[in-house]
Amino acid sequence: MSSSFGQNIKLQVFGQSHSEAVGVVIDGLPAGYPIDMERVQTWLDRRRGGQNAWSTPRAEADTPRIVSGLLDGVTCGAPLCAIFDNANVRSQDYDEISRVPRPSHADYYADEKFFGAQDFRGGGHFSGRLTVGLVFAGAVCAQLLEKWDVHLGAHIEQIYHVLDQPFDTLELCVDDLRFEGFPIIDAQVEQPMKDAILTAASEGDSVGGVIECAVIGLPVGVGSPLFDGIENALAQAIFAVPAVRGIEFGAGFEAAGMLGSEHNDGLGLAVGDGDGPRVSPLAHLSNNAGGVVGGLTTGAPLIFRVAIKPTPSIAKQQQSVDLECMKEVELSVKGRHDPCIVPRAVPCIEAVTAFVLADKMVIEHE
Amino acid sequence: MSSSFGQNIKLQVFGQSHSEAVGVVIDGLPAGYPIDMERVQTWLDRRRGGQNAWSTPRAEADTPRIVSGLLDGVTCGAPLCAIFDNANVRSQDYDEISRVPRPSHADYYADEKFFGAQDFRGGGHFSGRLTVGLVFAGAVCAQLLEKWDVHLGAHIEQIYHVLDQPFDTLELCVDDLRFEGFPIIDAQVEQPMKDAILTAASEGDSVGGVIECAVIGLPVGVGSPLFDGIENALAQAIFAVPAVRGIEFGAGFEAAGMLGSEHNDGLGLAVGDGDGPRVSPLAHLSNNAGGVVGGLTTGAPLIFRVAIKPTPSIAKQQQSVDLECMKEVELSVKGRHDPCIVPRAVPCIEAVTAFVLADKMVIEHE
Amino acid sequence: MSSSFGQNIKLQVFGQSHSEAVGVVIDGLPAGYPIDMERVQTWLDRRRGGQNAWSTPRAEADTPRIVSGLLDGVTCGAPLCAIFDNANVRSQDYDEISRVPRPSHADYYADEKFFGAQDFRGGGHFSGRLTVGLVFAGAVCAQLLEKWDVHLGAHIEQIYHVLDQPFDTLELCVDDLRFEGFPIIDAQVEQPMKDAILTAASEGDSVGGVIECAVIGLPVGVGSPLFDGIENALAQAIFAVPAVRGIEFGAGFEAAGMLGSEHNDGLGLAVGDGDGPRVSPLAHLSNNAGGVVGGLTTGAPLIFRVAIKPTPSIAKQQQSVDLECMKEVELSVKGRHDPCIVPRAVPCIEAVTAFVLADKMVIEHE
Amino acid sequence: MSSSFGQNIKLQVFGQSHSEAVGVVIDGLPAGYPIDMERVQTWLDRRRGGQNAWSTPRAEADTPRIVSGLLDGVTCGAPLCAIFDNANVRSQDYDEISRVPRPSHADYYADEKFFGAQDFRGGGHFSGRLTVGLVFAGAVCAQLLEKWDVHLGAHIEQIYHVLDQPFDTLELCVDDLRFEGFPIIDAQVEQPMKDAILTAASEGDSVGGVIECAVIGLPVGVGSPLFDGIENALAQAIFAVPAVRGIEFGAGFEAAGMLGSEHNDGLGLAVGDGDGPRVSPLAHLSNNAGGVVGGLTTGAPLIFRVAIKPTPSIAKQQQSVDLECMKEVELSVKGRHDPCIVPRAVPCIEAVTAFVLADKMVIEHE
Repeated sequence: MSSSFGQNIKLQVFGQSHSEAVGVVIDGLPAGYPIDMERVQTWLDRRRGGQNAWSTPRAEADTPRIVSGLLDGVTCGAPLCAIFDNANVRSQDYDEISRVPRPSHADYYADEKFFGAQDFRGGGHFSGRLTVGLVFAGAVCAQLLEKWDVHLGAHIEQIYHVLDQPFDTLELCVDDLRFEGFPIIDAQVEQPMKDAILTAASEGDSVGGVIECAVIGLPVGVGSPLFDGIENALAQAIFAVPAVRGIEFGAGFEAAGMLGSEHNDGLGLAVGDGDGPRVSPLAHLSNNAGGVVGGLTTGAPLIFRVAIKPTPSIAKQQQSVDLECMKEVELSVKGRHDPCIVPRAVPCIEAVTAFVLADKMVIEHE
Repeated sequence: MSSSFGQNIKLQVFGQSHSEAVGVVIDGLPAGYPIDMERVQTWLDRRRGGQNAWSTPRAEADTPRIVSGLLDGVTCGAPLCAIFDNANVRSQDYDEISRVPRPSHADYYADEKFFGAQDFRGGGHFSGRLTVGLVFAGAVCAQLLEKWDVHLGAHIEQIYHVLDQPFDTLELCVDDLRFEGFPIIDAQVEQPMKDAILTAASEGDSVGGVIECAVIGLPVGVGSPLFDGIENALAQAIFAVPAVRGIEFGAGFEAAGMLGSEHNDGLGLAVGDGDGPRVSPLAHLSNNAGGVVGGLTTGAPLIFRVAIKPTPSIAKQQQSVDLECMKEVELSVKGRHDPCIVPRAVPCIEAVTAFVLADKMVIEHE
Repeated sequence: MSSSFGQNIKLQVFGQSHSEAVGVVIDGLPAGYPIDMERVQTWLDRRRGGQNAWSTPRAEADTPRIVSGLLDGVTCGAPLCAIFDNANVRSQDYDEISRVPRPSHADYYADEKFFGAQDFRGGGHFSGRLTVGLVFAGAVCAQLLEKWDVHLGAHIEQIYHVLDQPFDTLELCVDDLRFEGFPIIDAQVEQPMKDAILTAASEGDSVGGVIECAVIGLPVGVGSPLFDGIENALAQAIFAVPAVRGIEFGAGFEAAGMLGSEHNDGLGLAVGDGDGPRVSPLAHLSNNAGGVVGGLTTGAPLIFRVAIKPTPSIAKQQQSVDLECMKEVELSVKGRHDPCIVPRAVPCIEAVTAFVLADKMVIEHE
Repeated sequence: MSSSFGQNIKLQVFGQSHSEAVGVVIDGLPAGYPIDMERVQTWLDRRRGGQNAWSTPRAEADTPRIVSGLLDGVTCGAPLCAIFDNANVRSQDYDEISRVPRPSHADYYADEKFFGAQDFRGGGHFSGRLTVGLVFAGAVCAQLLEKWDVHLGAHIEQIYHVLDQPFDTLELCVDDLRFEGFPIIDAQVEQPMKDAILTAASEGDSVGGVIECAVIGLPVGVGSPLFDGIENALAQAIFAVPAVRGIEFGAGFEAAGMLGSEHNDGLGLAVGDGDGPRVSPLAHLSNNAGGVVGGLTTGAPLIFRVAIKPTPSIAKQQQSVDLECMKEVELSVKGRHDPCIVPRAVPCIEAVTAFVLADKMVIEHE
């Protein structure tokens, strides 16, 4: 059992949805790096709820209290601990779920695992609330990556049946990875996506989606074969974000229907410098690999997609079981929930990606 | 950098495609379990090449030499080491690739990572040859799982554009997980799948596919939240199998286009015993979760799908770069390669799954 | 770089001597165990300074704030985080040491390691202040161990040249491990030990000592061969307590001067039940092994001794170097320091021991 | 349970005393380092038995078979696996110990741990035979360290009651760390030490001793505070060598009886260059710390001492219990054993030290 991750930089997450606070310890950050807390707060604000029609009305300030690890705003080599108070808690909403588990939530399964002792309030340690610590850690690590000329960003590629266009797989510059407001590439899909969310919400229902993430500036050969490659580490960490159901790199599942001659990424000599940072004397003629082969970065943009399920907490009636009297019952989930978690999951996916890459790259930069 | 995996049972893989041998050490197996080596050999034979038109003509005996860890065929608590000789090696085929990297292989990226020192012959440590150790480990672990009433199996769900039907997500018994010969559910797709492979092969090309894997008999609550859940561990390990490009659990990427009310798996009381092993007093009305929620098993069958890319080694001309004179050149990959790796990847996916689950469950059974 | 420890239960320590707070996260505690916080506080009070002539006048309340991990005082399966505020901080005392490193402190070495960015105030992350989190974790784990019939305790065996008598190596009951006030076995050495401390203090000097720790009730066979045995894990963790310079098990360094026939612990049949918990049908005729052979517990009491160096912070003049002008200077360490750290180190050694053993044994009790 | 060690370089040991072979996998060695196998063999020969009156008559060739990891004698980035055949095995000697455990051996304790399934022949996985893999790994790592200007060596400081003089703690050059034949500093103690061993042997008895190890050339600041410092890692690993009962750094247990003003190592400016490699602009006036403070190297020689118990296998009659009929019996250990393991343990201690330091330092040199 473990809420920790990482080899060179270690992440330890703690807290429950309704405990006094949630937080994170980041152990192994290199010393001497100034951290811009305003930019960290910007990431945290993108994850924060209570700001619009499609996110939970639970509004926390989400301002980190830095317990340790910084001296005058600069990493000092000691573990960085940040804590976020749980102020806006309404535990009474959750009285029922200690008895009637919510479908497709961890309620019942955690109850079995922890012999009935787990903190069922708000999903306990399984709550999306825990991702505030992940986003903090990722926002810090992204600042390290930038110092090493590595940049990343993610956008909503799909909500319900509405699709955004994908990233260009070969030509990406820093500006292509920065999004204002609703993070999409094609501005025309913003309203249809929001409509899909609001329609579901108005019916007491929810919708899922897909997030696409890209990283540029990675040198060739970061990662390892077998169990500790870029795909392995990212996949392990990305599934820590609640509601993730799948991950694919580059052409991903589409590769299954391709010929080798279609899928292979030919190699040529790199010409000129382009807008983005140069990382290799060779250039790829295509990027179906999504920038990673055999666990190693190729120098082309790292690109992967993540499937997010529809929020399981819905007002619509569902069938469950009352565990006290062992009777089947109808359940309508109360509490304050997002009808679509995808927009708030975008900074989570970015954060986990930043953390994983900083963990791999810190060895060369310490 | 690491070719090891696991927390309670540790797997250490070693060897290169053309080194004296390849092998595996499994440290932490519980003592006192007899291992049926004939059944282990059956798994190894399913992975073995040189047996039909769609696999590499390189034919190794793939008979494990047990160096340590068994006493009279029973696990003795010491690390189990098995070694497989590399007899059928033709290194001369690979002289060219030390200079001209093969597209979508690790050649060039490993060359950069290891400063030109890596073993380029046959893909070195990145070769599919390394999976023989994984399959051995998985075949051993599957025998442990069976003692704990856990059974697993995988089939080819897709090759190129030909689709097999998927597993039933709720009703699965041990017989549904056993396949004779070509591992498919719908016998009618066998010929079309083989035709797709042979057509590609005849054109010096290759095809990809999808593998679906299922596990039954898992108790409720195996796994953990956040970084160490079933999805995290399986995803990390599955990407160790060369050519894997994506993984999804249950509805996976389809969940992105579903409503919460469609995707949620309602709960009811379990009725009767069924054919498979019983694991919970509750039953699921559907299994879009694929048997795992928030890192924990639900008691329903664990089901996931894995995308396999077309074999990158193809005879067709591709563009690459001669690294010695830094000139773009045409490359036709020689050597002995599978026009489709999917059939041989099936036991690899099963093996990794068996290992991951044994690693999680051994604590309760030691 | 890592301030974390443990395999099944993971400990993550954070904080600096003068950061906002210090604390600890304990991840992997089994769910459903009530924790008696009054007894935890008793352990913390034994470690706390500011209470008598031989400990630092810096007086912190050392009352833990439980951030997460308990529900109504019972472990809930989520990481347990406890935080201790750093209220009584006088950073001005440390202005000089940013320039003139204190001999036999980490000051200069950490300055080199962290490129001048480390938090030098009060020793930063290297301070004994960090042990408050260790003691908290150990006090929690000791309550788990008691539920499993394992009990432990430590006493001062030596301060400067004054020796206490050692534990009986074979016959130990719970009462033998409990000490009121100054933790010694032979009451007659209390005053001489205190005199040794006060004499040194009056001369601006300090003294070291030895702590002996014993554990009873351990079943036979806890631990592992090679790198993960009881000795390995205890040794690794005990050296985390500042000022520890050596560790020996059973006869330890005296074994070097013994014959095999003197040192070997013969085996006989256990007769009767004795006062302590029974753990094996065999009994040892002696316990030169200190209850551990080849990494495994033997069933006899686990006994080891730890060497503690004299506190390096002394008022007496010492030679150091002013790093700004690179000139040799005389230094008299200011700040508030213990003339002997041994009494306060006793609960630290107990705590680390409790944690290590709980980490090893939790697998069987989850 | 684990026979693996290391964070950046991972060591996996396998084999039993009487299994087909024993060996080691070293994963994470940096690529591009040529390994001189003749020098590796020299280390192995120093550990090898069957060569003189005080070591076991069991004579193995101890020539490693390199299974993987080298290409033309140069590390290639893939795990390095070396195997040593167990040819000279006489299992019949061990029939009795499956029933009557040898005092102060792991026999009985392992029997309990592994439910009677462990390989009891020759001590199984607990045998000193396993250290051949450690020595191989250490000999390889020592060659890396030399490239980084780090040198190490160990000598016998004590056998029974005969003492060698200790290393000079401040002035050590490479030549001081190299020993021909019997590794001692003062040639006059060679005969008394050998006499002590032979006298014990002639009486069917055995003797213990102390090994002192030193390392020079380490830069300042290698290591970490708390759990992952130089002392922690060395202590954890050194206890993997069978028969080790204690470890102390610098003044060690003597520090307990010292004043702070005696024990503290004052700092001055380094003058001149000396014979050994320079590592810091500061010089220590003494080295009671043994070159390590708070987990970090100080730049002074790293010096520690290790207590080795007398070989537990002795011909002299001892009391044990026949586990089949549960009766107390007299036992005289047969088989081929060293009357003193200390000389052969010297290269083991050196090897483990080399491995631990390479693991810590490889990050900066990859």
